Amino acid sequence: MSAADVPRADQLETFPNQFPGREYTVEIVCPEFTSLCPKTGQPDFGTITFAYTPAKLCVELKSLKLYIWSFRNEGHFFEQVTNQILDDLVRALSPRRLRVEGRFKVRGGITTRVVARYRGEPVAARSSR
Amino acid sequence: MSAADVPRADQLETFPNQFPGREYTVEIVCPEFTSLCPKTGQPDFGTITFAYTPAKLCVELKSLKLYIWSFRNEGHFFEQVTNQILDDLVRALSPRRLRVEGRFKVRGGITTRVVARYRGEPVAARSSR
Amino acid sequence: MSAADVPRADQLETFPNQFPGREYTVEIVCPEFTSLCPKTGQPDFGTITFAYTPAKLCVELKSLKLYIWSFRNEGHFFEQVTNQILDDLVRALSPRRLRVEGRFKVRGGITTRVVARYRGEPVAARSSR
Amino acid sequence: MSAADVPRADQLETFPNQFPGREYTVEIVCPEFTSLCPKTGQPDFGTITFAYTPAKLCVELKSLKLYIWSFRNEGHFFEQVTNQILDDLVRALSPRRLRVEGRFKVRGGITTRVVARYRGEPVAARSSR
Amino acid sequence: MSAADVPRADQLETFPNQFPGREYTVEIVCPEFTSLCPKTGQPDFGTITFAYTPAKLCVELKSLKLYIWSFRNEGHFFEQVTNQILDDLVRALSPRRLRVEGRFKVRGGITTRVVARYRGEPVAARSSR
Amino acid sequence: MSAADVPRADQLETFPNQFPGREYTVEIVCPEFTSLCPKTGQPDFGTITFAYTPAKLCVELKSLKLYIWSFRNEGHFFEQVTNQILDDLVRALSPRRLRVEGRFKVRGGITTRVVARYRGEPVAARSSR
Amino acid sequence: MSAADVPRADQLETFPNQFPGREYTVEIVCPEFTSLCPKTGQPDFGTITFAYTPAKLCVELKSLKLYIWSFRNEGHFFEQVTNQILDDLVRALSPRRLRVEGRFKVRGGITTRVVARYRGEPVAARSSR
Amino acid sequence: MSAADVPRADQLETFPNQFPGREYTVEIVCPEFTSLCPKTGQPDFGTITFAYTPAKLCVELKSLKLYIWSFRNEGHFFEQVTNQILDDLVRALSPRRLRVEGRFKVRGGITTRVVARYRGEPVAARSSR
Amino acid sequence: MSAADVPRADQLETFPNQFPGREYTVEIVCPEFTSLCPKTGQPDFGTITFAYTPAKLCVELKSLKLYIWSFRNEGHFFEQVTNQILDDLVRALSPRRLRVEGRFKVRGGITTRVVARYRGEPVAARSSR
Amino acid sequence: MSAADVPRADQLETFPNQFPGREYTVEIVCPEFTSLCPKTGQPDFGTITFAYTPAKLCVELKSLKLYIWSFRNEGHFFEQVTNQILDDLVRALSPRRLRVEGRFKVRGGITTRVVARYRGEPVAARSSR
Repeated sequence: MSAADVPRADQLETFPNQFPGREYTVEIVCPEFTSLCPKTGQPDFGTITFAYTPAKLCVELKSLKLYIWSFRNEGHFFEQVTNQILDDLVRALSPRRLRVEGRFKVRGGITTRVVARYRGEPVAARSSR
Repeated sequence: MSAADVPRADQLETFPNQFPGREYTVEIVCPEFTSLCPKTGQPDFGTITFAYTPAKLCVELKSLKLYIWSFRNEGHFFEQVTNQILDDLVRALSPRRLRVEGRFKVRGGITTRVVARYRGEPVAARSSR
Repeated sequence: MSAADVPRADQLETFPNQFPGREYTVEIVCPEFTSLCPKTGQPDFGTITFAYTPAKLCVELKSLKLYIWSFRNEGHFFEQVTNQILDDLVRALSPRRLRVEGRFKVRGGITTRVVARYRGEPVAARSSR
Repeated sequence: MSAADVPRADQLETFPNQFPGREYTVEIVCPEFTSLCPKTGQPDFGTITFAYTPAKLCVELKSLKLYIWSFRNEGHFFEQVTNQILDDLVRALSPRRLRVEGRFKVRGGITTRVVARYRGEPVAARSSR
Repeated sequence: MSAADVPRADQLETFPNQFPGREYTVEIVCPEFTSLCPKTGQPDFGTITFAYTPAKLCVELKSLKLYIWSFRNEGHFFEQVTNQILDDLVRALSPRRLRVEGRFKVRGGITTRVVARYRGEPVAARSSR
Repeated sequence: MSAADVPRADQLETFPNQFPGREYTVEIVCPEFTSLCPKTGQPDFGTITFAYTPAKLCVELKSLKLYIWSFRNEGHFFEQVTNQILDDLVRALSPRRLRVEGRFKVRGGITTRVVARYRGEPVAARSSR
Repeated sequence: MSAADVPRADQLETFPNQFPGREYTVEIVCPEFTSLCPKTGQPDFGTITFAYTPAKLCVELKSLKLYIWSFRNEGHFFEQVTNQILDDLVRALSPRRLRVEGRFKVRGGITTRVVARYRGEPVAARSSR
Repeated sequence: MSAADVPRADQLETFPNQFPGREYTVEIVCPEFTSLCPKTGQPDFGTITFAYTPAKLCVELKSLKLYIWSFRNEGHFFEQVTNQILDDLVRALSPRRLRVEGRFKVRGGITTRVVARYRGEPVAARSSR
Repeated sequence: MSAADVPRADQLETFPNQFPGREYTVEIVCPEFTSLCPKTGQPDFGTITFAYTPAKLCVELKSLKLYIWSFRNEGHFFEQVTNQILDDLVRALSPRRLRVEGRFKVRGGITTRVVARYRGEPVAARSSR
Repeated sequence: MSAADVPRADQLETFPNQFPGREYTVEIVCPEFTSLCPKTGQPDFGTITFAYTPAKLCVELKSLKLYIWSFRNEGHFFEQVTNQILDDLVRALSPRRLRVEGRFKVRGGITTRVVARYRGEPVAARSSR
């Protein structure tokens, strides 16, 4: 697992939300996520979907693309990586709301989907890793 | 970005709602939206969907088509243009409710969708641009 | 526009609801609606979907088919015709609830859908035409 | 119409619900329903979908299949047969909840769907037929 | 029916939930479930879908695959096996919430779907079998 | 099996082909075919598709509908009924070419499709039944 | 049936093919065809698809749209109208090759498709009507 | 691998082809094939599709279903089992032509399809196993 | 129409085909083509698909993207632009074979597709424009 | 580009074809191909499909999976990698026939598909790289 996940969140660039007085939603679909299985080293593939309500900041799409690519040669479990991406985006954007969904391709005849949500609670609430 | 967005909203023609005593919905799908990326100048493509509950006015479809075309050779970010269209339609129609959704085609392997809603709050609530 | 819309509603035949003590729903889809554009005289096409909760009366399907055909060579705007159909069915059926949806085919690259609902309020609530 | 609908419900066999302490749902789709039009004698076709929350009894699938076949050469209106099936299943199963949906194939360019629900109210509530 | 279902649940391996302070969902789809009909001995096929909110434990996917395979040559009714799988997963994971859905292939022209949910109530609530 | 299949073909009405000097194709899809299994008496369902090149005669659609209905309460194997329909249509139409396809619904987890063609050879070529 | 079909073909406007030295194909799909049933007077609906290899002339699309509309209130059989459209287009365009396909909506549970082709043979080859 | 494959073919029952003078096709789709991986013992799943032109014999569907089930707990490679099924059916039916296609579910992110055909050549042409 | 189409073809960059001794196919789909209607000035939208067998040269994809964009604010008929693109690619690539297909969005209820092919004949074969 | 492509082909393991006397087809779909763009270093994604007629050897699927993974962190053009995979499989299998198709995900709004075939000609026929 990546010990460097705090700096990774720093890769995410932002720009000011031009409509801060309005609650609106931005949904971003990244169907080209790939990482490695921490047990077997085999590649995993999936689609990561974000939906957030911006507060003061929006995420810059090119930096998000690079952020997604940064997982390419790292080992990650499906449950862990979806939650980590949620934490990284919360740190970078401080959004009003955020939902991250990871849909991962079939492994051993089984398909997995993980959905995590942020609704204003502090990021520190997760356990130490 | 267009400094002329107030006149642009004036392009939108209206006609009187014949059923003002009833809450009903009009949904309009425009799959032929195109503008330019403000950073690279490259064309972007998308589908703009409106759904509104008319108060006294309905939007005339031919003028809406021309309004959509007016973005063709201007630079616009996805988040900004979806909110601007919401503002323009609120100015032109003073609807009871309005929802604008922009679904934009894949760029860098990433697809973006922006959804903004109006529910009777004053249009002036957004920040200066 | 048709001055004869009250008689038109009279074309709709009904039969007694055999299960008046139960709230149930009948949904009817008519994908073969066509009328003329009041501005250009060009044919428009669409699908009309009704969903109603019968009170004492159900609509007879063959008469509904003839009612739908009666719009074939008349000029109608999408917003107007959907609401008129709602009014006609309310007059004929006095249902507990009724929803009428008109999905109209693409014109000028734009697709329109109109949804109107009746929930026990008096039909007279619309403006004079 | 069948005068024998009470005995027909008796064709439905049941078995004891092994998990009576839990609210769970069983949904059964029968795409091979056919009966005759009471007016014209022409065959009608449809899909009947049941969803119920069992109390003490579950329906045995083979007897349900035979029950569905028993309508094959009888005249039935769409609204009537959907409600009759609801009544028959309520009699046979005394379920906690039951929903019956009939989706019937296009006739005269029109498609019909009827949805009826049971939520613990007495079956006797319908009118005499 | 399997008298050995308690040991079967023990086959399910778990790992600690790294994000116990967050309510998130894991959905797992197993389209390769097969068992035998207890009446006829004929093979049945279906898709089992789990969605759970982990508390302290997550299910290890390879052990889940083996657990699903263990039904291959046993007789099971659709209603019973879906509820049994719910009970086994509740025992193994003590989740905050769990939903199990079994969609079974057409038999006699009829398709069956069973959905059972766990929401913190004690597993012992079901009847003896 | 029906001993009356020669008279049945006589039910098929025809009208003169207005374009006998041109080779063109008429394809007719009947998704509402039903008959009985000769072994078990259980209903079978299927879609019959005809494609023919008319010579002097075209088939009248209403009579074709009645012809299809005439199988409703008769026992027929899939292979036999598809070939019989081919023979009946050849007798009634003497077409230049004819293709009959029967697609039958799943039975015992197995779906069957039968395709037979006529290309000017004498109908008498089949074996006695 | 229309006695005026020769003048109707004259409604079709053309423009010179700019690439007469190359064999290429133009396919045009008109999903908004409607006419009346000559027997019952009821509306029929369908999709007309043309595919032609131009010689010296191409068809102007707006005039083709008007030509298609001209059938709206006339009685036509499916087989006849598809062949008539072929003849009209051959007269107007003198193409190298032409294929006309009419797909008509379900009537009496039956769907019909007619396909006619022109490959340089004289149009006069059809029978008198 | 099964040493008993010759007797297995004997399980396939046949009935006389009633139309031996006509070349027609019977296509049978079995989406519920399952066997075991000879290397790992893990279940494999797939769809077997047969298409044959009968000579003197047709295959009886219930015996075919039992034949397909007989592979359930045997080890088979995809390439081998598809060819073996071809051989077994050729032995049982002596068809004019036969095509067997096996589509197997994803394993290790890879999907496999095997297609083998028989066209009158002697079955003995394969190598000894 | 563009008088500058020869220079436009020069925008297309190429790279050497590494496998000139093998006949293989490259298919490229550009769903983001847009130009203007020469009659009305209104935007048209379409998908351009190329399939070519390279001889000595392959087309560089970024230059192809820019080439497609160069039509954005020019007037073009569907038939003309598809053939012009064929000519431009033949000039730039001298391929063994080339097929260009333009699928254009619905206008006036009508959808148009144009397909042109090159098979080694000289480009000069078209008429002067 | 990989200078090591000959050893890479050696990673492909084979097993003897049990049915060498029969022409049959094995099709393998690998939707999880990924490599890097040689120009930009950005990840590319695609689906590689093989279809081959085995001679004496079949490809072992697990080694094929590893072979596909070996491209993960290498730079490859779409045209080059599809042809290289063809060459590698021809070296490893000496098949009777082989077809390799690479379908690559959208880049710059453009989708690319490359198809190469082998039909018994010597692999040495390509140019030096």
